[in-house]
Amino acid sequence: MNRESFAAGERLVSPAYVRQGYEARRSHEHLIRLLLEKGKCPENGWDESTLELFLHELAIMDSNNFLGNCGVGEREGRVASALVARRHYRFIHGIGRSGDISAVQPKAAGSSLLNKITNSLVLDIIKLAGVHTVANCFVVPMATGMSLTLCFLTLRHKRPKAKYIIWPRIDQKSCFKSMITAGFEPVVIENVLEGDELRTDLKAVEAKVQELGPDYILCIHSTTSCFAPRVPDRLEELAVICANYDIPHIVNNAYGVQSSKCMHLIQQGARVGRIDAFVQSLDKNFMVPVGGAIIAGFNDSFIQEISKMYPGRASASPSLDVLITLLSLGSNGYKKLLKERKEMFSYLSNQIKKLSEAYNERLLHTPHNPISLAVTLKTLEEHHDKAVTQLGSMLFTRQVSGARVVPLGSVQTVSGYTFRGFMSHTNNYPCAYLNAASAIGMKMQDVDLFIKRLDKCLKAVRKEQSKESDDNYDKIEDVDIEEMALKLDNVLLDTYQDASS
Amino acid sequence: MNRESFAAGERLVSPAYVRQGYEARRSHEHLIRLLLEKGKCPENGWDESTLELFLHELAIMDSNNFLGNCGVGEREGRVASALVARRHYRFIHGIGRSGDISAVQPKAAGSSLLNKITNSLVLDIIKLAGVHTVANCFVVPMATGMSLTLCFLTLRHKRPKAKYIIWPRIDQKSCFKSMITAGFEPVVIENVLEGDELRTDLKAVEAKVQELGPDYILCIHSTTSCFAPRVPDRLEELAVICANYDIPHIVNNAYGVQSSKCMHLIQQGARVGRIDAFVQSLDKNFMVPVGGAIIAGFNDSFIQEISKMYPGRASASPSLDVLITLLSLGSNGYKKLLKERKEMFSYLSNQIKKLSEAYNERLLHTPHNPISLAVTLKTLEEHHDKAVTQLGSMLFTRQVSGARVVPLGSVQTVSGYTFRGFMSHTNNYPCAYLNAASAIGMKMQDVDLFIKRLDKCLKAVRKEQSKESDDNYDKIEDVDIEEMALKLDNVLLDTYQDASS
Amino acid sequence: MNRESFAAGERLVSPAYVRQGYEARRSHEHLIRLLLEKGKCPENGWDESTLELFLHELAIMDSNNFLGNCGVGEREGRVASALVARRHYRFIHGIGRSGDISAVQPKAAGSSLLNKITNSLVLDIIKLAGVHTVANCFVVPMATGMSLTLCFLTLRHKRPKAKYIIWPRIDQKSCFKSMITAGFEPVVIENVLEGDELRTDLKAVEAKVQELGPDYILCIHSTTSCFAPRVPDRLEELAVICANYDIPHIVNNAYGVQSSKCMHLIQQGARVGRIDAFVQSLDKNFMVPVGGAIIAGFNDSFIQEISKMYPGRASASPSLDVLITLLSLGSNGYKKLLKERKEMFSYLSNQIKKLSEAYNERLLHTPHNPISLAVTLKTLEEHHDKAVTQLGSMLFTRQVSGARVVPLGSVQTVSGYTFRGFMSHTNNYPCAYLNAASAIGMKMQDVDLFIKRLDKCLKAVRKEQSKESDDNYDKIEDVDIEEMALKLDNVLLDTYQDASS
Amino acid sequence: MNRESFAAGERLVSPAYVRQGYEARRSHEHLIRLLLEKGKCPENGWDESTLELFLHELAIMDSNNFLGNCGVGEREGRVASALVARRHYRFIHGIGRSGDISAVQPKAAGSSLLNKITNSLVLDIIKLAGVHTVANCFVVPMATGMSLTLCFLTLRHKRPKAKYIIWPRIDQKSCFKSMITAGFEPVVIENVLEGDELRTDLKAVEAKVQELGPDYILCIHSTTSCFAPRVPDRLEELAVICANYDIPHIVNNAYGVQSSKCMHLIQQGARVGRIDAFVQSLDKNFMVPVGGAIIAGFNDSFIQEISKMYPGRASASPSLDVLITLLSLGSNGYKKLLKERKEMFSYLSNQIKKLSEAYNERLLHTPHNPISLAVTLKTLEEHHDKAVTQLGSMLFTRQVSGARVVPLGSVQTVSGYTFRGFMSHTNNYPCAYLNAASAIGMKMQDVDLFIKRLDKCLKAVRKEQSKESDDNYDKIEDVDIEEMALKLDNVLLDTYQDASS
Repeated sequence: MNRESFAAGERLVSPAYVRQGYEARRSHEHLIRLLLEKGKCPENGWDESTLELFLHELAIMDSNNFLGNCGVGEREGRVASALVARRHYRFIHGIGRSGDISAVQPKAAGSSLLNKITNSLVLDIIKLAGVHTVANCFVVPMATGMSLTLCFLTLRHKRPKAKYIIWPRIDQKSCFKSMITAGFEPVVIENVLEGDELRTDLKAVEAKVQELGPDYILCIHSTTSCFAPRVPDRLEELAVICANYDIPHIVNNAYGVQSSKCMHLIQQGARVGRIDAFVQSLDKNFMVPVGGAIIAGFNDSFIQEISKMYPGRASASPSLDVLITLLSLGSNGYKKLLKERKEMFSYLSNQIKKLSEAYNERLLHTPHNPISLAVTLKTLEEHHDKAVTQLGSMLFTRQVSGARVVPLGSVQTVSGYTFRGFMSHTNNYPCAYLNAASAIGMKMQDVDLFIKRLDKCLKAVRKEQSKESDDNYDKIEDVDIEEMALKLDNVLLDTYQDASS
Repeated sequence: MNRESFAAGERLVSPAYVRQGYEARRSHEHLIRLLLEKGKCPENGWDESTLELFLHELAIMDSNNFLGNCGVGEREGRVASALVARRHYRFIHGIGRSGDISAVQPKAAGSSLLNKITNSLVLDIIKLAGVHTVANCFVVPMATGMSLTLCFLTLRHKRPKAKYIIWPRIDQKSCFKSMITAGFEPVVIENVLEGDELRTDLKAVEAKVQELGPDYILCIHSTTSCFAPRVPDRLEELAVICANYDIPHIVNNAYGVQSSKCMHLIQQGARVGRIDAFVQSLDKNFMVPVGGAIIAGFNDSFIQEISKMYPGRASASPSLDVLITLLSLGSNGYKKLLKERKEMFSYLSNQIKKLSEAYNERLLHTPHNPISLAVTLKTLEEHHDKAVTQLGSMLFTRQVSGARVVPLGSVQTVSGYTFRGFMSHTNNYPCAYLNAASAIGMKMQDVDLFIKRLDKCLKAVRKEQSKESDDNYDKIEDVDIEEMALKLDNVLLDTYQDASS
Repeated sequence: MNRESFAAGERLVSPAYVRQGYEARRSHEHLIRLLLEKGKCPENGWDESTLELFLHELAIMDSNNFLGNCGVGEREGRVASALVARRHYRFIHGIGRSGDISAVQPKAAGSSLLNKITNSLVLDIIKLAGVHTVANCFVVPMATGMSLTLCFLTLRHKRPKAKYIIWPRIDQKSCFKSMITAGFEPVVIENVLEGDELRTDLKAVEAKVQELGPDYILCIHSTTSCFAPRVPDRLEELAVICANYDIPHIVNNAYGVQSSKCMHLIQQGARVGRIDAFVQSLDKNFMVPVGGAIIAGFNDSFIQEISKMYPGRASASPSLDVLITLLSLGSNGYKKLLKERKEMFSYLSNQIKKLSEAYNERLLHTPHNPISLAVTLKTLEEHHDKAVTQLGSMLFTRQVSGARVVPLGSVQTVSGYTFRGFMSHTNNYPCAYLNAASAIGMKMQDVDLFIKRLDKCLKAVRKEQSKESDDNYDKIEDVDIEEMALKLDNVLLDTYQDASS
Repeated sequence: MNRESFAAGERLVSPAYVRQGYEARRSHEHLIRLLLEKGKCPENGWDESTLELFLHELAIMDSNNFLGNCGVGEREGRVASALVARRHYRFIHGIGRSGDISAVQPKAAGSSLLNKITNSLVLDIIKLAGVHTVANCFVVPMATGMSLTLCFLTLRHKRPKAKYIIWPRIDQKSCFKSMITAGFEPVVIENVLEGDELRTDLKAVEAKVQELGPDYILCIHSTTSCFAPRVPDRLEELAVICANYDIPHIVNNAYGVQSSKCMHLIQQGARVGRIDAFVQSLDKNFMVPVGGAIIAGFNDSFIQEISKMYPGRASASPSLDVLITLLSLGSNGYKKLLKERKEMFSYLSNQIKKLSEAYNERLLHTPHNPISLAVTLKTLEEHHDKAVTQLGSMLFTRQVSGARVVPLGSVQTVSGYTFRGFMSHTNNYPCAYLNAASAIGMKMQDVDLFIKRLDKCLKAVRKEQSKESDDNYDKIEDVDIEEMALKLDNVLLDTYQDASS
């Protein structure tokens, strides 16, 4: 409402009250102005009212929402379904232009602002999370794997002879496929066992660099966040190797923003050596739906090159999600989530430790992994062949999601490459184990339910008494989950192996 | 509500009424069952009530919505913002898995169903739109350009020697960049002028194939939908060349689903020759927000290969949009939109013809282009140098979006390649012109407003009387648009050239 | 967004585009300003974008949405559920104050504006619908019956001796109860039969006035909209009687706004005689949810007295609904609905006529009733006792809602008063009949389905072959409705009589 | 989705996953079944997913949502605006029927269920809140005042001679008007001062009963929740008087559900004497928007009589709000809110006490008032004439809502009755004072901000330095609130007196 509208309002109801309303409106506008001027995440989260006003204001700057617009092009932001328009807050034009996913769209000033502001907020959060010298970043509506592919494709133009990517092994398919899809040959560097931990074999990396010749190597592709007992790669040392041999370095930091340790590794790597880009998932770090990633780096122009490599416009949906989320949380809210995650990691760790000892198992000692834990399943493994996968299946049917059992000796072929001991990041880990992680947003209730159910499952597997009466089980589980569990256990046994990745 | 709930309901209100409610519920369920069983777009659109019930039912099958779930993984579909959860109908897990964007997710049966059904509906619509023998397709949450890149990257693995892509020129940046990004060298085939039309130079294509050698050619990359006076490529003949030389053929059908002519070309091409995949935009054909494309083809396994090439999960947002849209419209609703577009094309064509004659200009004769029209701007061009771009700027500020003026002699360099006569698909088109298109969803009001504003702008440019009083202008424009136009005309003149692509 | 925010925006994306967005925003503001200044329903409906912006702007003027508010009262507009806040667009304070439902609330300038504007729009529409000289009106969040009660309670204070209300009989319970609830004794004036029509017995009214004495009569309570064969009361003549004897006149115009005839009667009554207030339903005339009414009149101060009689605040929900509806429709949209209703009345009339003749029945000749029709059920009645109610039951189970069968000889006691021939507005109508009405929003499809189902039901009842196979029935009915019908017919037979009112 | 749909789903994605989704769905259904069977508020709040599923399931039982419905009545639940339909979850038919607001509607089984369940939940909560022997209650979409009127109108039919209502004075307009509107003569019983408290003058009540004669008294109309220094009426003793003289007793329990003391008074009154109905606000006790009340009582049939007295259907909106709220909170959530309110009352009390002492004022000793507090403004009053109202105005402009200053000697005439010392519940309270209340939903932040702002205002008023620089003020207030305050103080001074009620 403009000045004239308020004046008209004053004639309808008391001027004093309208004026107070007018002043109240200015508080919202003030927050919006600060955001646009500073480009930083507000300390305190906005309430929904300010947030929706802001999104509404942006949306009406897009031509599809102009009251007097007439469209005679092939792409006019028309929407057939009111439900669809509404769920996108009427942002229809997406982000970017043919030439560049970060470019401004003439038809969509509002969407363009949204895109700029989101990237700016996200940059602010990356700094806050520990990578203080990050130079630029952008949100891309593709998951981590495809975003890595985009980085590799960008590097191709700078390194015409390159055929290989050096890759310390991490058993996660999309990391591996990101290289295959980009058309390069992954050179797998097996990890070394130090205590219980699997760590980067730096000597093997350097040997391979020398063997293949730096010019033939597109980049080193390292990883921070991973399942224990693998731990984050030795980023500092890898970055130094990259600097020494003038080889690009791309870091898969999939769910590492949530961990100060992972972020610190990246900051340190960039300080002492070379890191060209680090890529992180939006959903895993910011509690938004799957589908976006952040490509960030220390060299502004290289990040721009990547953004120009994306051909055509792109969905604004992941940007919108993370914008809403960060404005709702504020930086304080996000920091609180990070703190709680850390606390929950300790709690989970302690609870698992206690439980494992009761079953003569052992929490693996993996101090370098700040997110994921592993507990041995030795006694199960000895018990019988399928006991490990059966445990996985049982947990799944009891609505424990994300727990992951790793039996010994699994072999899998991905895009023509065969991995022995697949899922364990090494050909031959000493024992089977179970993974659990403390990821951002985890609640104490998650841990408690997990421990309770794991306890029951372990008991059941051991005694082969899966049909025993479970009297003490809490009530809602009686009705829904146990009943279901009985029915599904057999069905799922076979499908389980597929389910855990 | 289950049987027991209805029984309880009967005790609270009259059994007869509850039972009628129960029967009414079955009508909704019946529609849902038919959809799941047939996998086809319903003839009549669903009402919002059925649609939301269906989405709700799917969503509660995802583990993040299980009431008793406990998550101990790194990706549990947690959402920080209720606004975000709500706008995604609580589908958080995205679609696909590490290995394959079409794969089923164990944690998300509902999202997986959503993905399958969407692909199935879209396949049904592609058949209905004219490509009857299409074998498979999938929605990918990337715009057309990046989707073409994915096709090229998939082909790379099958054609290790290939370095070139044969590409009949179309002046649209993202098409061109899709090849660059994939790491290939585009071989530009200039178009030939036939009457007013720019058409595929088949001889030049075949000559180039022979010159480079089929093995070194990744594919022919042809285009259906394009701005007049360029017309769709001669797909049949190109498909025959591909078949003869055993070269893959990828068709950029960006906004061609809306035109029976474009679809017919694809169908014929596949019948008589070879088409491996055709890629179309979701937003341009289905009136949804920017950000998705459909990759379709005649060979099931090749389409599956492409879907397996996408590394990692992906956003479900474009799939959800198109699902909502198609279920709302029904196939009858979509057919009606296609019919109206065709009618609007005739209407636009007639109106432009009339107007152009009044200004001694001419509607170019481009009968092979079913969507886009071009009208000469000869008199303007002769008038003075900047008159053509000035017209473009004036239309833009008067909220005519999508009209595109093409001056002579524009030169642009894209990724190191220089294009003379850029925007006109040829080095030297005989005259400057203006494009307008009749795209799906266009209304008669769009055409009428466009003609009215174009008339005024042409008058103004000619008389150099841009500040004359516009008495007859309709009222809302008096207030908002004209006023704005005066202010912005100068500012925009310089930025305009960037705005029209 | 204020000036500074736009300036900041210009630094992020191109100034020219931001400025165009800014100008576009002004179109929305312009519409809002016009509304606030004129207080009239816009001719063309607003789009959702303007509407939601407007509601949002109003809502942030309420103290519960102030960012810096602290509340230490007993009623602070706090909301426990975000779903609830959202569905009310964050208007929580309701409308009115202790003293007056039309009064301005200091804590809620936005809600107060909403209330004022709604009343202003509704007044505009009442004029447009035919009562040109209406002086004032207000929306009250109570249905028609309770609103009539409020009028009677207001009159009580002006007519201390009054005990009776003169009431030409209309068989609708809430009209009758509105008088009982207010504590008055209804004096029922039986209607007279003229042709097929039941019309006001003016002589009986006047005789009763003289008999009881004007001072002992609170008011005459007349009715416009009613089920055929009763027709609207003779308002002009009643209004003259009221003027002559100085008796207030309250008109129940429940669903009469939709009919120019009903509105004309009121206008004429007020012109030649006396009408103090006329009351209409929001839901029945404006296609909003049940729960609101409009109290309108020709004397500003009397309407204000009524509004001051409502003790305490009230729900803003009905006002919000009608505001959204009228702004969405615009006056043109509302006029279109009125026009379509009229056309549908003719269509329904013709279709029923045809069908009735095929069954040797007759459409009653009730030219004074512009909304409701009645068709005889003579042959059914003769057939057997329960055939008429059975027909009603069958229609109900076949999802025909609103059709109403009126058997002969029904007797009902309401609040101690016994009505013979209840539902037929007279003690002894010549025959049983079926009612159908053409109300605002009715579609041709409603009529067609109704005629089809009525045909089938009549056939079935006649032949006593309710289980015959219905081969030609359209498909969805096969599955859902017929099946249901078979099951429910028996159950419902008994409950039916309750269902038709 | 029914069995067949799930089966079809299993063919599209893995049966094991679909089955797990199916089982998960049953958890939601289980909660719904329990609700319908028990009719009690669930202990733990439902999540939005279950809640929306439930509302959706109910809505599709209403005939306006039947897919095959055809409507030929005058009230078919048609909705013109999709926004309106959506915000009401497609419940359009309201609640109740002509005869009874609690009656079941044949056309709307879902809305009818909603109504029944809401009333059932609310009854459960009233018991939980302390009135264990309540027999029946219903939600009515009118605020407290009009609901009291409805109670009085119902009693009228049982007590034909009655003309008076005995009413221990409480200075709240709508309470008073509720009796006027119903057509009765309020007999005001002045309160007696006991210490600082104003309490019921029982002797005066009994004397008045004897003087007027029980038959001529409609009822005693007492009050629980009120502003200090008035305290809840002596309900037990009043109830005994009512029982002794056979006079009905209606209790205005406006915001008393939130206080165990108020509820206890009612429970005790009913145990030892007579209470016919007690009426409470929905918004003030359940944090929903203004507009609904609960009428409850200890005699099932009397409550039914009241519900039958409401003529016609009514808005379902308040019922829907409270249903959503209670299901979201669960009884545990509601109990937590009650507990927090109590704690906040102590906190507020302590903070005010401290502050008042610093200014030589005194927190009035009103131990019987569990919600509202009063602090003297003696020094202000002595200072100068308008200082008290000026303080009120200053607090208002500083976004302190709900604080209420009570100057001495205010006289007001309501519906012809003159009240001396209006707002203070007595003709001549010893001093001016300020009220603040701890109502449900109040946060510690409210208290802290209030105390801070009150401190500043008191300082300013005293020093007459309202323009002094406020350096320590928190920042957002610098910009928005202080600036506003300066502007508005003068404007508001005059309008303030109106603002505080």
